[in-house]
Amino acid sequence: MAVEEFSLIERYFKSSQASRNTSGLDVGIGDDAAILSPPAGQRLCVAVDTLVSGIHFPENTPACDIGYKALAVNLSDLAAMGASPYAFTLALTLPDTKEHWLQGFSEGLLTLAKEHQIALIGGDTTRGPLTISVQVLGLLPCQQGLLRSGAKVGDDIYVSGNIGDASLGLQIQQGKLIPATEGKHQQYLLSRLNRPTPRIALGQALLDLANSAIDVSDGLLVDLKHVLDASQVGARIKLEAIPLSPAYQACTDSQNVPSLHRYTQALEAGDDYELCFSAAKEKREQLKALKGHIPITRIGEIIKEKTLQCLDANGVEFDYDPRGFEHF
Amino acid sequence: MAVEEFSLIERYFKSSQASRNTSGLDVGIGDDAAILSPPAGQRLCVAVDTLVSGIHFPENTPACDIGYKALAVNLSDLAAMGASPYAFTLALTLPDTKEHWLQGFSEGLLTLAKEHQIALIGGDTTRGPLTISVQVLGLLPCQQGLLRSGAKVGDDIYVSGNIGDASLGLQIQQGKLIPATEGKHQQYLLSRLNRPTPRIALGQALLDLANSAIDVSDGLLVDLKHVLDASQVGARIKLEAIPLSPAYQACTDSQNVPSLHRYTQALEAGDDYELCFSAAKEKREQLKALKGHIPITRIGEIIKEKTLQCLDANGVEFDYDPRGFEHF
Repeated sequence: MAVEEFSLIERYFKSSQASRNTSGLDVGIGDDAAILSPPAGQRLCVAVDTLVSGIHFPENTPACDIGYKALAVNLSDLAAMGASPYAFTLALTLPDTKEHWLQGFSEGLLTLAKEHQIALIGGDTTRGPLTISVQVLGLLPCQQGLLRSGAKVGDDIYVSGNIGDASLGLQIQQGKLIPATEGKHQQYLLSRLNRPTPRIALGQALLDLANSAIDVSDGLLVDLKHVLDASQVGARIKLEAIPLSPAYQACTDSQNVPSLHRYTQALEAGDDYELCFSAAKEKREQLKALKGHIPITRIGEIIKEKTLQCLDANGVEFDYDPRGFEHF
Repeated sequence: MAVEEFSLIERYFKSSQASRNTSGLDVGIGDDAAILSPPAGQRLCVAVDTLVSGIHFPENTPACDIGYKALAVNLSDLAAMGASPYAFTLALTLPDTKEHWLQGFSEGLLTLAKEHQIALIGGDTTRGPLTISVQVLGLLPCQQGLLRSGAKVGDDIYVSGNIGDASLGLQIQQGKLIPATEGKHQQYLLSRLNRPTPRIALGQALLDLANSAIDVSDGLLVDLKHVLDASQVGARIKLEAIPLSPAYQACTDSQNVPSLHRYTQALEAGDDYELCFSAAKEKREQLKALKGHIPITRIGEIIKEKTLQCLDANGVEFDYDPRGFEHF
């Protein structure tokens, strides 16, 4: 780590969290590696996700939103495992040293870190095209954890929050869409793109309730397919059960998107970072109780036949090959 | 993770280590996150280092060497803490999907992983300018660990291996230098650049012997300065004690580099990934015994005055402001 880089990290990332109380952080930023003493009896969850400028976010995205999202998408992976966030590192590749940008980026990043009570424990800053890799460490009680491979035939399929918002947010960020009802909807959809909510509390609540889970990053059906493959099962989805936000409905109304298409469009959209999970029918009551705090919607069921069936409003299956957002 | 990306990772990274026996790896590649059950009574060491094409390696570097080095520089950070390698993740940003390149890259990466008995537990593959971030997890016995902040006045200062080789290797890789005695030296210097040896065994041996340690990535003196700053001490270095390899000497001989300058050139060179450490004088005998297995050289001592003094062959201090390799 070179002198200039060192002082950059010191200035923007270390000082601002000096007061963070991370249990078991023996050595943080400033040595060759961090040293942690994780609590006994816990398993360690590790995920890494990279955002590349122009691929994962438009180049005009505010720095604070990039910082926020870089951590959010990783926390979303922990949420999908049912883990509680513990610590994270940052590998930041920057084309140049714009202090203003770094200030915003670190603010966004550390705002979310503070919310989840986790510390940045190390990092590497390099020069090059804007690329951000965050790696998160989470904790899981022994013997617990939500896997993609646990879906059982007969399980209900649920999704949290609303689907499709981020894709409209992206169109707004790119200047391709100006909602008829600007103000509120515009701000909501942009925040769904740039500041997704990692469903950490939901993930942990699901440890005792769900049989499988995944986060929706590439598109609901594409991600669900990973669960089906890993669990060696199929699924039947009721298209019009897919939860759409008022903002999404208003925008697609004003664009005259046909009814069915607005659902398939939502299903193919990425970047929502909601959780899609399956749970036994016996858990319905408990999940209803949960619904008081966290929005979840039942959208279908796990079936034995290894196919993904989409039913329209009349319960009729229609031929549909979902495409997801291909990051690569 | 998109479908194509998923199959890429499956093909090149997962299958090739199916037989790896990583204790405590409950869930590896293929879910939202990996799950580990680290052995009880150990602390966790975490480091991350990024390599950017054209910055950290010339663009004509063979893919297998890039893969090897991306892990090696991270293991070097663990070595500097005295940690034993445990697991790692890979964030790989690629401009395009060249199977030939991926084949070479994964071979180099997994060769070194195998050598140190660690598994790739997760990753993210994205499209963009070639950038590789590896994050390593290591284990440290409780209460143990080498820090930058532990140097004591009166400590001897040591460095492992030889210094300056990688800088000549870089000149060769860039086509700027053709050693007079090609063959052997050329190959040696290139391998010192592209396949640095993380000093894992040395780091662990030093847990009971050294007071401080750092790995030499940016230049011996620049890195030593981090130790001095963290420990609030100074150092006196005997310039001509700096260990230079026969290849380095032969090359600088043929270039007619003046004697003193060949040492300062070595001190300012980065990328050697040797360990620089300090140890009490009472440990000299034990360190001599160690020297039978691992090359280490005593190059100076820790002093109270917070300066970095360089002495020439006559023991006379000369005015010298070392510059290191600035990655950023």
